[in-house]
Amino acid sequence: MVDAAMQSGTADRACLFEAFARRLPNGRRYGIVAGTGRLLELIQAFRFEDAELDWLRENNVVRQGTLDWLADYRFGGEIWGYREGEAYFPGSPLLTVESSFAEGVILETLILSVLNYDTSVASAAARMVSVALGRPIAEMGSRRTGEQSAVAAARAAYIAGFDATSNLEAGRRWGLPTMGTAAHAFTLLHDSEEDAFRAQVTAFGPGTTLLVDTYDIRAGVELAVAVAGTGLGAVRIDSGDLPTVVAAVREQLDSLGAVNTRITVTSDLDEHTIAGLSGSPVDGYGVGTSVVTGSGAPAAGMVYKLVAHKGDRGEDWIPVAKASAQKISVGGRKSAFRRLDATRTAREEIVDVQGVGADTPAGTSNESERELLVHLAHKGVPDERYLGHAGTLLAREHRAKAMQELPVQAFRLGLGDPVIPTTYR
Amino acid sequence: MVDAAMQSGTADRACLFEAFARRLPNGRRYGIVAGTGRLLELIQAFRFEDAELDWLRENNVVRQGTLDWLADYRFGGEIWGYREGEAYFPGSPLLTVESSFAEGVILETLILSVLNYDTSVASAAARMVSVALGRPIAEMGSRRTGEQSAVAAARAAYIAGFDATSNLEAGRRWGLPTMGTAAHAFTLLHDSEEDAFRAQVTAFGPGTTLLVDTYDIRAGVELAVAVAGTGLGAVRIDSGDLPTVVAAVREQLDSLGAVNTRITVTSDLDEHTIAGLSGSPVDGYGVGTSVVTGSGAPAAGMVYKLVAHKGDRGEDWIPVAKASAQKISVGGRKSAFRRLDATRTAREEIVDVQGVGADTPAGTSNESERELLVHLAHKGVPDERYLGHAGTLLAREHRAKAMQELPVQAFRLGLGDPVIPTTYR
Repeated sequence: MVDAAMQSGTADRACLFEAFARRLPNGRRYGIVAGTGRLLELIQAFRFEDAELDWLRENNVVRQGTLDWLADYRFGGEIWGYREGEAYFPGSPLLTVESSFAEGVILETLILSVLNYDTSVASAAARMVSVALGRPIAEMGSRRTGEQSAVAAARAAYIAGFDATSNLEAGRRWGLPTMGTAAHAFTLLHDSEEDAFRAQVTAFGPGTTLLVDTYDIRAGVELAVAVAGTGLGAVRIDSGDLPTVVAAVREQLDSLGAVNTRITVTSDLDEHTIAGLSGSPVDGYGVGTSVVTGSGAPAAGMVYKLVAHKGDRGEDWIPVAKASAQKISVGGRKSAFRRLDATRTAREEIVDVQGVGADTPAGTSNESERELLVHLAHKGVPDERYLGHAGTLLAREHRAKAMQELPVQAFRLGLGDPVIPTTYR
Repeated sequence: MVDAAMQSGTADRACLFEAFARRLPNGRRYGIVAGTGRLLELIQAFRFEDAELDWLRENNVVRQGTLDWLADYRFGGEIWGYREGEAYFPGSPLLTVESSFAEGVILETLILSVLNYDTSVASAAARMVSVALGRPIAEMGSRRTGEQSAVAAARAAYIAGFDATSNLEAGRRWGLPTMGTAAHAFTLLHDSEEDAFRAQVTAFGPGTTLLVDTYDIRAGVELAVAVAGTGLGAVRIDSGDLPTVVAAVREQLDSLGAVNTRITVTSDLDEHTIAGLSGSPVDGYGVGTSVVTGSGAPAAGMVYKLVAHKGDRGEDWIPVAKASAQKISVGGRKSAFRRLDATRTAREEIVDVQGVGADTPAGTSNESERELLVHLAHKGVPDERYLGHAGTLLAREHRAKAMQELPVQAFRLGLGDPVIPTTYR
């Protein structure tokens, strides 16, 4: 497309692209935006190096003039969007890119890959956090998604309210709290379960978490307390009918005097099994597959559409949209506001479709309409506040605030409509 | 685990780890192994650099002795496994790693991330290829999965029989055929659909593929032929009730004399919608979300288990397995064979659990039992044949052969049992 547009003289036209989702996946009530801070860093670093340029040349993918343009590529446009961690609904204008056509269209795959994956994880994770009722919840799913996606998933889950991750690289890269645990292999490696427990307690002290279900859970719990003492930090259970097993283990721990020993459960948890444990004496959850694969919705359904461009004389914005019976898109630059009632509860997502003349998003809002768009990058330079460790923490904090505004119906797990309607004005 | 095992003196014990899946996802009849070649390259390059070591030190994650060991880490063990592209079933021993405990356990996340994701994509893709009935099928889902997973997905889909990808980096990195297409943004950028079609035909000639559903499909097709002539390569349709629309477009193209113009469809296809178009005059498919997210099974359910170790005196292998009512694991080194009948049709997956004394996988097989394990890496050095562009192509060819052996019931789309049973002997 860039190659053809360079030939037809339209590659330099000023354009507005918008990323949004037409619907929430799986009958969910709300979604949580994630990936934005990570994306801003990737856009700033987006380059075509010699290896890529050589391959494009040798395979005649694009012409020499386009190769020259790619070699010099630096994104220099404007980006507005929802804060990372914000709640979103169908049609919410999550990211708006203003640049030349070529400069903006070439980012489409990067933008959608990051937003689709990270938002999918965060939207699933937020539901797990809300049903965990304040009990700690750790992301342990690295092995169930692509090896690089695993790092992004840990970050997205943390933004959505998870407390820690087992992915050490995510800890290093994004400043997340990390945790570790012993697997069955550690127990099986040793000549006996007792040897394994002793080795772990020697290395990490009695405050460690012992995995007690390698052979027999009842015998495992007894042995764990015998080896570590009643100061044992926690036991982990990774199999069995969890409500039954957890109740029995709690009773056993108490009877052994290990009244402060916590119970951590793992074992293919998702938002529904976590909700099913709300009445059980569980002290912490570890979640794997379901969180890193978006719990049934591994891509958030984001699209990236051209919504306006200027003509060759660079005068006014011309709103554009595909006219398809099934896929409604709304052209033009948008602003967005969340209407809050007197109790600061969200009641409506307002997408403000501005007139042809608008050159920046409208900045008007009033007490009961919280403005949702922020300026994420200016002349290609991202706003520092949204980057790195600090940006990740900021996103997590913003998510907590945004969740507090949602009507209580948002937290129902069953299928339903978005908890607030989206209105265009 | 490595840190504790180094202290307890068990880190150096000779171990066998095995990657396998307890079940096929979603009532599928077979799975296709993918990721192996890519994984061998990643294992060979697996290192801990200063940035990671510094972070581990500063955060007191492991002790100094462990940091020293990590700094020198090079995998030097043996790897056996199924060929990439092979069909697999529950319990198939897809990858066996023989090394010290520490050396093998530290690869767990990498091995499972790659095998779970790539196998998920290939297993879904193979079903789409079989229902496409020989019509070309292209992978176009990069924007619906993590930005690095996208490259792996393109490769896995190609191994499973897809013909091309829109991911140019996958083309460069793995030697895959690539294709491109114009999006609605290209049409919307121009002052009219006619301008857009003219720009594209000027750039790429009449053999290009024009996207005809931006405004009105009937008018779009007429305009496409008017601009490009009856030599127009193809039209792409991305919306609408496809069987109806495709039939109408074919009739219209023929009536305009464009009898050789092909029809390509995209629009959220999966194996079921592709099967539903088998009677329609479609000439090619482009598949996005469903293939890169494993069509409902975004992780293949692989696990990586310690199945045997030697004692401190390094004498005999001791088979080990977790004893859990729900999660059956079989200890010990395995070999695997596919029993074929006189028509070379697969009838049984035989997993040979060898005695304690076996020091390498059994190599015996006869005419009706095809041996499934190959030696993938020796002393840490991968077999060159399975790497890079050549390895990817080899995997694609092997997949074609393996598919030919499957009973015809394997290709039913509905829920069911694995098409052949897995037998332990």
